[in-house]
Amino acid sequence: MKNKLLKIKPYIKGFQPLNKKNIKLNTNENSYYSNLKIIKQILKEIKFFGNKLKFYPDGDSDIIKREISRYYNINKNKIAISNGSDEILANIFITFLKSKKKLYLIDITYSFYESFIKLYKINYKLIKLNKNFSINIKKIKKNNNILINNPNAPVGKSLNNLEIKVILKNFKSLIIIDETYIDFEENSFIKLIKNIKNVLIVQTFSKSKSLAGLRIGFLITNKNLIKKIESVKNSLNSYPVSIISQISVKNIIKNNSHFEKIKNKIIENKMYLISKLKKLKFKIIKSNTNFILTTNKNININKLLKFLNKKNIFLRKFEIPKIENYLRITIGKKKEIKIINKNIKNFIKFLIKKN
Amino acid sequence: MKNKLLKIKPYIKGFQPLNKKNIKLNTNENSYYSNLKIIKQILKEIKFFGNKLKFYPDGDSDIIKREISRYYNINKNKIAISNGSDEILANIFITFLKSKKKLYLIDITYSFYESFIKLYKINYKLIKLNKNFSINIKKIKKNNNILINNPNAPVGKSLNNLEIKVILKNFKSLIIIDETYIDFEENSFIKLIKNIKNVLIVQTFSKSKSLAGLRIGFLITNKNLIKKIESVKNSLNSYPVSIISQISVKNIIKNNSHFEKIKNKIIENKMYLISKLKKLKFKIIKSNTNFILTTNKNININKLLKFLNKKNIFLRKFEIPKIENYLRITIGKKKEIKIINKNIKNFIKFLIKKN
Repeated sequence: MKNKLLKIKPYIKGFQPLNKKNIKLNTNENSYYSNLKIIKQILKEIKFFGNKLKFYPDGDSDIIKREISRYYNINKNKIAISNGSDEILANIFITFLKSKKKLYLIDITYSFYESFIKLYKINYKLIKLNKNFSINIKKIKKNNNILINNPNAPVGKSLNNLEIKVILKNFKSLIIIDETYIDFEENSFIKLIKNIKNVLIVQTFSKSKSLAGLRIGFLITNKNLIKKIESVKNSLNSYPVSIISQISVKNIIKNNSHFEKIKNKIIENKMYLISKLKKLKFKIIKSNTNFILTTNKNININKLLKFLNKKNIFLRKFEIPKIENYLRITIGKKKEIKIINKNIKNFIKFLIKKN
Repeated sequence: MKNKLLKIKPYIKGFQPLNKKNIKLNTNENSYYSNLKIIKQILKEIKFFGNKLKFYPDGDSDIIKREISRYYNINKNKIAISNGSDEILANIFITFLKSKKKLYLIDITYSFYESFIKLYKINYKLIKLNKNFSINIKKIKKNNNILINNPNAPVGKSLNNLEIKVILKNFKSLIIIDETYIDFEENSFIKLIKNIKNVLIVQTFSKSKSLAGLRIGFLITNKNLIKKIESVKNSLNSYPVSIISQISVKNIIKNNSHFEKIKNKIIENKMYLISKLKKLKFKIIKSNTNFILTTNKNININKLLKFLNKKNIFLRKFEIPKIENYLRITIGKKKEIKIINKNIKNFIKFLIKKN
């Protein structure tokens, strides 16, 4: 298992074709914009702060910490801010996971974890997902570190209440929960961990908050672990978050009602897409995120993707065993979903004609 | 020597008191703003691109590469962009310097290098600066890697033409030149290296370009080394430069004449400050940057700094042997320099009164 993983190449980014005509639903960005009100507020602040661009930003991103602290009602000294959640994940790996304890993680999960493991030579073990793509908690040895993407990308499934209880009660080493997709249909672990010292929770502004372009992620854990990881951050890049990204966040959190609306639209569109795909005999894994993973035994997904690319529709698949013939679709706007549905139907017609 | 360095703590950032009343000349930022024309152009572009904040930025920062390529007349595939120059320096350390070859560097130089060395356990050797704070090139063994800050912070001195020739001719391993302060009074190595494969040149938009707040740095070297370091970057943080920072750069380079003006003002102000300090019996090291390092055998610099802090003037000193009683002053506006001069005079009067 170990040798196999070591051969894997660095994280491969989803293709970024930024042409207005495209339907780009390949990297799980939010299909809905930060509303214009938010953009305008940000512009106003930049006008005011413009003259400060000559200064280094606050390296601790204190104005972001304050907003998150208020939002989650958690002490500021339990929060660290980063240049996207990938940066704080990288720093978690180098700070805490280069230990004798094994890091347990799942065989089908966010593929960036493998890049960190390879680069930092982490001692690890992969756990196979169950046939229904849920996690078999029992397979994780309790005295080791674990890293779980909850909900788990690219699968879409999240832990159930019983699994969460078992994890928080039994595991005494580091429990790292990557909550990149938590805001769509789930509740964060943050509310559960007030007095638990071994849990690290990572979140991002790139998905539910529609701000992938500004590069903001964060970690919530106990203050001693925050001190350690900030000391490593200060040995790598002291000022990772630009001044403009920092001043934007206040306006984002203030406008949280806007993101509640977006979230509900995405859930509605997801249900709509699932109903359409079911009619076309697709099998869909239960998803609590802004994407679905789906397959169809009569369809070669590679060929379908090529067909869609020609129509300027960009979706994604992964070269991972067990899901090699699965298609991942980020949930777009209703209009976009209708176009996807229409084109998948056309592809099926084209298949029938050919045979 | 090695053990000593290992005890050094992570890079300590200069204090960032962002109050308008302060004179903040402690972290070598540019005292002059990006002019309002540039800020306005940036705002216009953000208005246009605002709706793209939901997307991930281009991970390769291609629009920045294109501008630098044009500016230096160098192929795009010889350029890598980073979140400030510290990020690309960190990635140079993990990509190229974890080797059996020793890394040679200078005992008084940019203190962040020591943080990278400690974190990544780099095999290194410190070369003592000459008494006049110049570098003794002969002490560097030719089959090892070298890292030189040129001009060298916090000293201010740069290599002379003869030293540059010797380095480029004799050294066959990696030569890393950190040109953070190159634009003030020197010429970049970039023009010399068209066909030399072992030189890596790091630059930043934080000093001469007045844009520390946007976090942009870059590396110029041969295309094979660029490929390697981008592969490591993509194993750590694929999208490190925010969309807004990327779209700003075009306007910055277009307005290069503005920065020529700023540069000339800074050199003028530096000469003015030096003349004033000489009258107060300060000894000043020759500087080719936007800062000076200076000392006065009759003055305890720690006490002077405390005295100035009370007047909301922030300068800096370093706890490094040989320069423990030196003061570093970033060159500010004429107005600021006059206030500093007046307050140093007051401090000297206060000393005389006391005795």
